[in-house]
Amino acid sequence: MGAVKRIAILGSTGSIGQQTLDVVRSLPDELEVAALTGNQNLRLLERQIQEFQPKMLCSSVKPDVSHGGQFLSAEDIASHPEVDLVIIATVGKAGLNPTLAALRAGKTVALANKEVLVMAGEIIVREASIHHAQILPIDSEHSAIRQCLQGEETRPRRLLLTASGGPFYRYSQAQLAEVTPEQALRHPVWKMGRKITVDSATLMNKGLEVIEAHWLFSFPFDSIEILIHPQSIVHSMVEFADGSLKAQLSWPDMRLPIQYALSYPRRWPNPELPRLDWNQVNSLTFEPVDYDRFPCLKLALEAGKSRGTYPAVLCAADEVAVELFLSHRIHFTDIAEIVQKTVEQHRNISQPTLEEILAADDWARECATGISPGRCQKPERRNRHGTRR
Amino acid sequence: MGAVKRIAILGSTGSIGQQTLDVVRSLPDELEVAALTGNQNLRLLERQIQEFQPKMLCSSVKPDVSHGGQFLSAEDIASHPEVDLVIIATVGKAGLNPTLAALRAGKTVALANKEVLVMAGEIIVREASIHHAQILPIDSEHSAIRQCLQGEETRPRRLLLTASGGPFYRYSQAQLAEVTPEQALRHPVWKMGRKITVDSATLMNKGLEVIEAHWLFSFPFDSIEILIHPQSIVHSMVEFADGSLKAQLSWPDMRLPIQYALSYPRRWPNPELPRLDWNQVNSLTFEPVDYDRFPCLKLALEAGKSRGTYPAVLCAADEVAVELFLSHRIHFTDIAEIVQKTVEQHRNISQPTLEEILAADDWARECATGISPGRCQKPERRNRHGTRR
Repeated sequence: MGAVKRIAILGSTGSIGQQTLDVVRSLPDELEVAALTGNQNLRLLERQIQEFQPKMLCSSVKPDVSHGGQFLSAEDIASHPEVDLVIIATVGKAGLNPTLAALRAGKTVALANKEVLVMAGEIIVREASIHHAQILPIDSEHSAIRQCLQGEETRPRRLLLTASGGPFYRYSQAQLAEVTPEQALRHPVWKMGRKITVDSATLMNKGLEVIEAHWLFSFPFDSIEILIHPQSIVHSMVEFADGSLKAQLSWPDMRLPIQYALSYPRRWPNPELPRLDWNQVNSLTFEPVDYDRFPCLKLALEAGKSRGTYPAVLCAADEVAVELFLSHRIHFTDIAEIVQKTVEQHRNISQPTLEEILAADDWARECATGISPGRCQKPERRNRHGTRR
Repeated sequence: MGAVKRIAILGSTGSIGQQTLDVVRSLPDELEVAALTGNQNLRLLERQIQEFQPKMLCSSVKPDVSHGGQFLSAEDIASHPEVDLVIIATVGKAGLNPTLAALRAGKTVALANKEVLVMAGEIIVREASIHHAQILPIDSEHSAIRQCLQGEETRPRRLLLTASGGPFYRYSQAQLAEVTPEQALRHPVWKMGRKITVDSATLMNKGLEVIEAHWLFSFPFDSIEILIHPQSIVHSMVEFADGSLKAQLSWPDMRLPIQYALSYPRRWPNPELPRLDWNQVNSLTFEPVDYDRFPCLKLALEAGKSRGTYPAVLCAADEVAVELFLSHRIHFTDIAEIVQKTVEQHRNISQPTLEEILAADDWARECATGISPGRCQKPERRNRHGTRR
């Protein structure tokens, strides 16, 4: 069936990038690596280049390999005629410009970089629509929803995003204040990067996922709900107009949503992917999330609903706060406080340009860095940013 | 949005028939009752005729109503040009000829009558294919599978039929022998007819559903599995080639699979249908079925795999045995014994005609009636039936 898909992996040395290459290894007849890009881990990038021999490369430091491939910018790779599908496996705002370049070239984008839709959802969705380009989610929750929506003609009633609840879901406020970075980095289910693991513990991550779902499926916020499901077997559900629900289930393994984005709308057999063993699944539990317990979740939903530059400010402030927490400079519960104070000080720009979004991000980093949690610091005038266009 | 669907309900006074009319009451803009047929409950049929004023009727006894409708045979109704969709809500072999008439006229058939596919799956599926007619299942399990398959291009790996396990799933053999009809008629989840309720307790019903699934989805028996799921919220699942599963969930309410068959491939909002409330769903449990504990399940699967006239013999013997049990003439555990002995005495006809299937049914009823459970009665020669064509 069909020709080999030529894929570009932006951020191939990160967690999603490496797992994407795992999927490629299992499916040599279906996938071909046309391009790799990486920055942080040069040794790993060199090994990946040796193994996959991509025609195109992008890295700020030149890898030490004899390789006939061409060095291009990430944007040129993302829009290259010899690329069928672009995997955005970068983190933070690094994914913004390559995603836009890919969409404007009409490419299918498999998106793992959360911030792209959170920061610039309105722009991204508009460009995808103008250029008839498809965005396929790589997050397990959004992949689950995409799978449940497949073939359904009628608009569903609700999206139900599941959340493991992270390691501290039953903690009291006093217990939460004492959480150490070491505890926060031990996620009960998923093995992920440090930032997203802490975001899972604060439930900021789930809030960002709601914003992503809002843009990906053009669904209003009040029809997207969160269910705590500690076993992480049901990756999300959709409730339809007739009251019927569909759920997608599997062992938690990111290679499955990665492969689904690559094989969509088909499915490929892959013996490397785990099969659910019902002798090992005891019981699946679900409960509506307690919004009051996790302020980061509330902050994210408010920023999402307020639109404009708020979500970018939220993301940037959270990144600063998580870094401060991981370096033992603030408490776990201070993360929400820093994000909240930063968002409160921001003057929103509605329908911002990409430049305005990036400027809001810069401003928020500076602002968040200057906040001393615990004291209700009054912001200085010069810290403010943003006037209506 | 399309025009109003004109439906014929065959067996409108039974449990599925009445619930179908409930759905019609909620959706007057979508559905119109073109025909009603019933036999057992004349008073109810008269009330239904008064309310829905169908153009066509079929009943062995003439209802006492002033009504301008036309009396026709069930087959003429099922194939009538003014009918868009035929609901086969009869029980036993009564559904066979009307189903074939509907399929040969190219109608969409919504099928609740289990025996149609169990007894004559090969013929039914062939006729549907020849006449490009669609069969939509009304059973909650098969509706769930149909929903999970929607929009999927690649053949799945497994179908997972869920089963509540009935009221006696944890009983010992000694306890099972003492089960009374009154206990067997108390199903923990579904309110259904007497025969199917006992079949649920013996798990014969689940075996028949596996045979139905085999024909409906043209799936081999060894790729159809049964999972015990006592909460009856997940109505079945499909496992795809990549290891991903989709499940369909809802409160157990037959009006949902009925409506899905009527609205397919769309979905209609219906405020009368219950919504799943996650505050009331505690935990969902699943375990592979213990085939050895319930001999009726094994017998059904063996008959299904053996094809030919075996499944018809199984159905008929089970009907006789369940009736004997309900009238306190045999033990609960004798049901399996009677079915087994009947099947053992049957000489199979492969690729039987409809007439041969009906003859096997007659033979099996006579044979099953003559079996005294508990004693290993040797069949007499004249009780045998069936020679290879």
